[in-house]
Amino acid sequence: MKFSIVNNVITFRSLFMSVTLVVWSGLALCQGEIVLKGATLIDGTGAPPLKNSIIVIDGDRFKRIGSTSKHINISKNARVIDVSGKYIVPGLMDANVHLFRDVSIEFIARYEDRLEELITEGAQIALKHGLTTVFDSWGPLQPLMNVRDRINRGEIPGSRVYVAGNIVGLSGPFGRDFNAVGSWIAPKTFVNRINAIFEENTGPQLSLLSPNELRGEIRKYVNRDIDFLKYAVNGHDCRGCSGFPELLNLSSVLLFTPEAQDVIVDETHKGNITVQTHTSSVVALQQAVNARVDMMQHCAMTGEIPIPDALINQMLETKIFCAVQPRTSKRMKAESENSNLFRRTPKMQNVWHENQIRLMKAGVPLLLATDAGVANPIKTEVEVDQKEFDVEHPEMLGEAHFIWFRAMSQKGMKPMQSIVSATRNIAAAYGKLQDLGTVEKNKLADLVILNKNPLDNIENMRSISMVIKNGEIVDREALPINPILTK
Amino acid sequence: MKFSIVNNVITFRSLFMSVTLVVWSGLALCQGEIVLKGATLIDGTGAPPLKNSIIVIDGDRFKRIGSTSKHINISKNARVIDVSGKYIVPGLMDANVHLFRDVSIEFIARYEDRLEELITEGAQIALKHGLTTVFDSWGPLQPLMNVRDRINRGEIPGSRVYVAGNIVGLSGPFGRDFNAVGSWIAPKTFVNRINAIFEENTGPQLSLLSPNELRGEIRKYVNRDIDFLKYAVNGHDCRGCSGFPELLNLSSVLLFTPEAQDVIVDETHKGNITVQTHTSSVVALQQAVNARVDMMQHCAMTGEIPIPDALINQMLETKIFCAVQPRTSKRMKAESENSNLFRRTPKMQNVWHENQIRLMKAGVPLLLATDAGVANPIKTEVEVDQKEFDVEHPEMLGEAHFIWFRAMSQKGMKPMQSIVSATRNIAAAYGKLQDLGTVEKNKLADLVILNKNPLDNIENMRSISMVIKNGEIVDREALPINPILTK
Amino acid sequence: MKFSIVNNVITFRSLFMSVTLVVWSGLALCQGEIVLKGATLIDGTGAPPLKNSIIVIDGDRFKRIGSTSKHINISKNARVIDVSGKYIVPGLMDANVHLFRDVSIEFIARYEDRLEELITEGAQIALKHGLTTVFDSWGPLQPLMNVRDRINRGEIPGSRVYVAGNIVGLSGPFGRDFNAVGSWIAPKTFVNRINAIFEENTGPQLSLLSPNELRGEIRKYVNRDIDFLKYAVNGHDCRGCSGFPELLNLSSVLLFTPEAQDVIVDETHKGNITVQTHTSSVVALQQAVNARVDMMQHCAMTGEIPIPDALINQMLETKIFCAVQPRTSKRMKAESENSNLFRRTPKMQNVWHENQIRLMKAGVPLLLATDAGVANPIKTEVEVDQKEFDVEHPEMLGEAHFIWFRAMSQKGMKPMQSIVSATRNIAAAYGKLQDLGTVEKNKLADLVILNKNPLDNIENMRSISMVIKNGEIVDREALPINPILTK
Amino acid sequence: MKFSIVNNVITFRSLFMSVTLVVWSGLALCQGEIVLKGATLIDGTGAPPLKNSIIVIDGDRFKRIGSTSKHINISKNARVIDVSGKYIVPGLMDANVHLFRDVSIEFIARYEDRLEELITEGAQIALKHGLTTVFDSWGPLQPLMNVRDRINRGEIPGSRVYVAGNIVGLSGPFGRDFNAVGSWIAPKTFVNRINAIFEENTGPQLSLLSPNELRGEIRKYVNRDIDFLKYAVNGHDCRGCSGFPELLNLSSVLLFTPEAQDVIVDETHKGNITVQTHTSSVVALQQAVNARVDMMQHCAMTGEIPIPDALINQMLETKIFCAVQPRTSKRMKAESENSNLFRRTPKMQNVWHENQIRLMKAGVPLLLATDAGVANPIKTEVEVDQKEFDVEHPEMLGEAHFIWFRAMSQKGMKPMQSIVSATRNIAAAYGKLQDLGTVEKNKLADLVILNKNPLDNIENMRSISMVIKNGEIVDREALPINPILTK
Repeated sequence: MKFSIVNNVITFRSLFMSVTLVVWSGLALCQGEIVLKGATLIDGTGAPPLKNSIIVIDGDRFKRIGSTSKHINISKNARVIDVSGKYIVPGLMDANVHLFRDVSIEFIARYEDRLEELITEGAQIALKHGLTTVFDSWGPLQPLMNVRDRINRGEIPGSRVYVAGNIVGLSGPFGRDFNAVGSWIAPKTFVNRINAIFEENTGPQLSLLSPNELRGEIRKYVNRDIDFLKYAVNGHDCRGCSGFPELLNLSSVLLFTPEAQDVIVDETHKGNITVQTHTSSVVALQQAVNARVDMMQHCAMTGEIPIPDALINQMLETKIFCAVQPRTSKRMKAESENSNLFRRTPKMQNVWHENQIRLMKAGVPLLLATDAGVANPIKTEVEVDQKEFDVEHPEMLGEAHFIWFRAMSQKGMKPMQSIVSATRNIAAAYGKLQDLGTVEKNKLADLVILNKNPLDNIENMRSISMVIKNGEIVDREALPINPILTK
Repeated sequence: MKFSIVNNVITFRSLFMSVTLVVWSGLALCQGEIVLKGATLIDGTGAPPLKNSIIVIDGDRFKRIGSTSKHINISKNARVIDVSGKYIVPGLMDANVHLFRDVSIEFIARYEDRLEELITEGAQIALKHGLTTVFDSWGPLQPLMNVRDRINRGEIPGSRVYVAGNIVGLSGPFGRDFNAVGSWIAPKTFVNRINAIFEENTGPQLSLLSPNELRGEIRKYVNRDIDFLKYAVNGHDCRGCSGFPELLNLSSVLLFTPEAQDVIVDETHKGNITVQTHTSSVVALQQAVNARVDMMQHCAMTGEIPIPDALINQMLETKIFCAVQPRTSKRMKAESENSNLFRRTPKMQNVWHENQIRLMKAGVPLLLATDAGVANPIKTEVEVDQKEFDVEHPEMLGEAHFIWFRAMSQKGMKPMQSIVSATRNIAAAYGKLQDLGTVEKNKLADLVILNKNPLDNIENMRSISMVIKNGEIVDREALPINPILTK
Repeated sequence: MKFSIVNNVITFRSLFMSVTLVVWSGLALCQGEIVLKGATLIDGTGAPPLKNSIIVIDGDRFKRIGSTSKHINISKNARVIDVSGKYIVPGLMDANVHLFRDVSIEFIARYEDRLEELITEGAQIALKHGLTTVFDSWGPLQPLMNVRDRINRGEIPGSRVYVAGNIVGLSGPFGRDFNAVGSWIAPKTFVNRINAIFEENTGPQLSLLSPNELRGEIRKYVNRDIDFLKYAVNGHDCRGCSGFPELLNLSSVLLFTPEAQDVIVDETHKGNITVQTHTSSVVALQQAVNARVDMMQHCAMTGEIPIPDALINQMLETKIFCAVQPRTSKRMKAESENSNLFRRTPKMQNVWHENQIRLMKAGVPLLLATDAGVANPIKTEVEVDQKEFDVEHPEMLGEAHFIWFRAMSQKGMKPMQSIVSATRNIAAAYGKLQDLGTVEKNKLADLVILNKNPLDNIENMRSISMVIKNGEIVDREALPINPILTK
Repeated sequence: MKFSIVNNVITFRSLFMSVTLVVWSGLALCQGEIVLKGATLIDGTGAPPLKNSIIVIDGDRFKRIGSTSKHINISKNARVIDVSGKYIVPGLMDANVHLFRDVSIEFIARYEDRLEELITEGAQIALKHGLTTVFDSWGPLQPLMNVRDRINRGEIPGSRVYVAGNIVGLSGPFGRDFNAVGSWIAPKTFVNRINAIFEENTGPQLSLLSPNELRGEIRKYVNRDIDFLKYAVNGHDCRGCSGFPELLNLSSVLLFTPEAQDVIVDETHKGNITVQTHTSSVVALQQAVNARVDMMQHCAMTGEIPIPDALINQMLETKIFCAVQPRTSKRMKAESENSNLFRRTPKMQNVWHENQIRLMKAGVPLLLATDAGVANPIKTEVEVDQKEFDVEHPEMLGEAHFIWFRAMSQKGMKPMQSIVSATRNIAAAYGKLQDLGTVEKNKLADLVILNKNPLDNIENMRSISMVIKNGEIVDREALPINPILTK
């Protein structure tokens, strides 16, 4: 057996396996001030860029932000980093990721005992690519919270993760709303065990409860220490979830009465967290707006029916944040030409595209959101040689947010607006503006330093030079520390 | 080739087939008055029985009803029938039948071109067993209306049929709500053709429409000449619909918002017809009551959750009629012991049983309703040797209403109440009280003459001596004239 | 009700249906001699064409055949038809048709009670297009024999049909070798009833019998009055038989030991009928040759493995007839480009194509055989809009034999050889040379008169001017008399 | 992180997992002679028991065997163990195990990377229960050989394993012969990868090869270092392999021609290893006997057809060994009453039972064989609560051989015959008699010491006091060292 310890990583090989353990020291917390000097700052508020900026980070927070032309106190022990000629944006955010995704029997069986490892890998890939904060809006609650807490305690590196757990009202992976065929084929004990991990008593049976009983269940779930709550207004379209010809598209059915939705929203707000929706039809979107939720996921996806103008106006009035998941032009073409594979008609593609443009023009506050997961989990579900999947794939974590920028740019979004959509708006939508979303005094010191100006071309968001999270410089090269899906 | 004409029936045999054609002469319409003299009349109003009654029928209506002790004018040409010692009840009704049912590929393919013949067979079996009026609440609209009209025109004998066509919001037989597996397996052209026949543009896509668009579609459908409209508040549980292990139980999902339901109810009422619901949960039942529908099918079937007392009270206040489909004790036992086959847990069985008793005791106006179809169509779906299906089967047309009487009697319903549930209540629920439901002056002359007193024992409803519909004596022996499923 | 009698056809319309009955008079049998004078005769023996021929038909047989240059006695009552400038070939034959085919639940349920009508339609379409004799090598035995006998008795027109019934060793339509998914989905009683009609005790269980028991079963089946026997050496590849993703390709498994095959061949020969095989691999083909069968269906279809030269030599030595089912160049391209749909790899296509050419060059006696059925039954199994199916479809009865001529011509077959393959060779393979296959004295008077010379271009086989079968002129316009699938 | 080393086992716990590593020292090899003194020896030859025996083991072999009444030299360093009052039998053998089994997607995905660990667990459970040698007749070849070699090198404890790998002619787990549904549902890359591990180019395509090509493939496979070769004469019945209603029973199809079988047998023998068959019909059994294989697995399983007397006689003459897998009376009852679950008709049960008795009475040399695998793998495939599975389960490794003894005893087998069937006969069948199967001089020192006399009651085989393998005392308590399925 051989042992080696290099950079906090212990490796040893034995007869049976190779094991890599990471001792994450969090030593960075002990550092003094960091001063970033000379870059152009785009602070996420939408304000004009500040040239020759000075940013002083003390511990995990921004202490002072100013211009080199004015005097700024810098402590003697400060580590001054010259970032002249570079561009600084707030730490990026993704309003909708799934650090664990893929509902095939094969995938879940293989990784059932390693859920936290996969989630960790996801959080580290996100951080590596500039996402200092991600919002996981569907996944196995307890493992997600465990990784979240481990990252927050500094035990392991990773993007800051906020967790919703189940989509209230939907089944677990092997159930009505996802891989229903899996529930017929797989061993019942396995099916029930997995579904229980995901549903945590917030599955389809919630739709059957009286308002009072529902209130009790929502309260219990909010008290599970979730960071935000997501509920399904209408059903899921998971026709691609199994290897079977066609499963049911449940987009046209509703899961909750307006009264029930009021209960969900009210009880979630009592827990001082935000509430958001899954919708995939205009009818459902209208319900969500009526329910005064804080935010709506994939709000532009409304089947083949465009969002009515009146509803867009209502969205504006109620100031509900709207997460969009655009496709690039190239991707739209690929999906339209393979509608059998992607189960999206060209008409749908077009309606969604137009919805996104109309929402943007109307001024509805939009959020960068991708549904991204590690690697391309879909690849495990279908033939590998279906190369259409690789066309500017919008859901591969690490790459997805850059694709989002490209797609929205093609739809007419200005770079500054894109940056705000990926930072300030998300923090605002999730009620985190006090700590996150902009480079402002006293906020958590999350930022991304770019080599090229993103306002010239949003593609320059890819030119990452450095990522700082919680005032610490991220060792991007080391991430993910224990690659599983991406090794 | 041989021809023969016997009793209005032409038969001939050729090389290829034997054909039987019926020339239904409707000669009875030419008769003069019929006088039924001496029976005990239970008139369907709930009033005490009238002994030694005299009922004068002129044409298709009751002209005079009285007692032999009083003088009643009888025309000279009148045909006086002595029915002393017998018992007369109004023509029976079933508030929920499906003259065509069975959604297997095999059945529909076999009979696609003979839908009207099957429906006719059903209407004749119903009439033979005392049902002078039935309400078909799901089936292929145009064929049902064709048979309805042919019966109404006197071209063929049969129960008076009122037709709803599709359940608004549900798919056709090969779709989300019924035999979904059929839609994967069967040829697409066949699937689409059959679904179109059943859906008539009132399928699942209606759930996606705006209130205005929905209003337009409902108006169109009401104008199709339907007799009443049924819509689905929640989804269908059709797990037994195909030969497959498990399909989805969609009982927990909702199909329409309250606003959409208001539109459906309002627009249906504008057409001067009644509106009713499909529900299978307490949540859906509450929605139906809120929507102020006229009647609710299988209102006691609420999954594993009992109807709350408050909701029963609301049902009482709103005076919504409630169709129930009870099981006999023996049947409940058989279903509970074979819950895998019947897909009903013992808990469900018990909840429904208790619901029925509670509704009855509360005074909610109940209706006899059976879901019955010709023969046992389910038998074609499963192994023939599963003899559990034969235990007091509650859905075999011709037998089902007698089973209903037995089941409700076991739950404590008095015979008089049963008779009212099978006559007056149904007419009232469907807005037909002016013409149907009781033996009263000027109403259509539908009645059943029994050999034994049904108030002594509701089983005596089986002792049918004569059925009169529209003032004509039904030749029960001749029915069904062209048996297909029951030959 | 309206009756009309026109040309032996009685039509009447009633309330329920329109019925058309045909009284087939067979009056032609009463005619005297027919003399065809002046055409160029290609007699099917392979001999050079005879110009200015005279063919005298007496009753159902050729009486005299000669040249106009020589004196030929013609009776006074003879009906002399001047066919100068035309071309006469023997009545065409197809060595492999399926007058009933399509194993979908939908199709079989729809037509279960009309099997004979469909078969009749097929036999009439065949005759209309010049096929005076067809060999049905798989189908429902009793209905096929009934139609065969009715045609033979002159009760209805149609191609002369020889019948095999089941392929010994294979399951019925809803079983292992065809639509296995159908057997899971469809009602068991239906499945069993249909399978019994097709299997007639010669299904998969025969593979399990001892030689003695097998002998008994074969004897019984031969005594069922079949015209020839076909057995499966290896399993069936029916992956396209159901709407399901993939069924099993059983081409690699064997159904009988050599000893069992010897029993089948021996016992069939004892019944004085020929025996043929279903094979789809080289291994199976070798087995068939070893078993000294009389003929092999689709002998060139050997998966992705070419027939070894040694085996071709053995086929030559044993003089076993070999039915081939070629594809045209255009069709091969369409199938190769849609191998997912047609479940044939480009490699298979190529191997089969080369096999056909090699067999032809080697001099193995080839037979025209198509697997054809009425219309395009496959169309009911798949999306209608898959237009690939329409590319020179090789299995549409009425068209298939012309496509065969085209395909073989593209592979280098000379017109004279094609004509022999479609006439004399088939008669020889089935032991019918005494009566059929060539235009020779005393044989049954089957022939096709063409407007154009088929030796110039085999496409001219389409230029049919007249078809004579059993000495009677076929009223081609009237066929099929009662179109069902082709109306 | 905590480390601990106890008895050659290193354990440590880290953040992520608990790892247990075993350093198997094989120190026992260094011991001097072991002398077992005073027990009654039943040496496996069938000879009468030898009371007061002395067995001297030197290294891994028996050096001397005699009676305490005679003088036997014992070296001074010998470790003398007094086993007076006990009973010694040869190390037990199982002629048919599957150290890895279960073909569900879930199971294989979960353990794909841990195949060797599962196999190791199996080999250790076997050894713990007295099986010093097992023959694995289907499983993943390379992992099985790796474990085999590691045990042989003394690196880990475990039963001596002989390995066949794939059943020549059958598909891998996700293919025609096992979980075919799995191959439709699971990701194609996974399906192909797993099938490749199992098939190693000896799958269904072998049935399509010419004798020469087949010879080449068999040679290659024999050279893979397999210990014996098993081929399938007929197909597999794997209807219980997936969660699906019914898969195909391929028992009636054959995979190889007699000529191909001769090639397989001949080429395997050239590699100096034995060849055996998978059969499940009388036809296949006859083929196997004709092919002069060395041994036949589950030779009594012949569907619903009894083995003919003539074939039993032929088995006797050819001296082919016959492995049987009996059911106890209780188990037969449970299986018969749940034939839907076990997919065995009562008739089958009875035929197999009678076959086993007839073979035994005829004197065919029988072998103990169980198909056993670790724990109850079937349990993962079906509902856990189906308690029928627990009734004297014949395939649970560690227990299965004791159930075999009980079952055969119920069928009339004498204890001495049972012991020979579990030792000498197996060694003979596999050509290992020189080294294994009996307690005789110079053979490998494998034996089991029992507390009670197995000749009194075969149930006493369970009273294991000590197991010695290769001259070493097995630390039974420690096994399995790293339990996975049985923890």
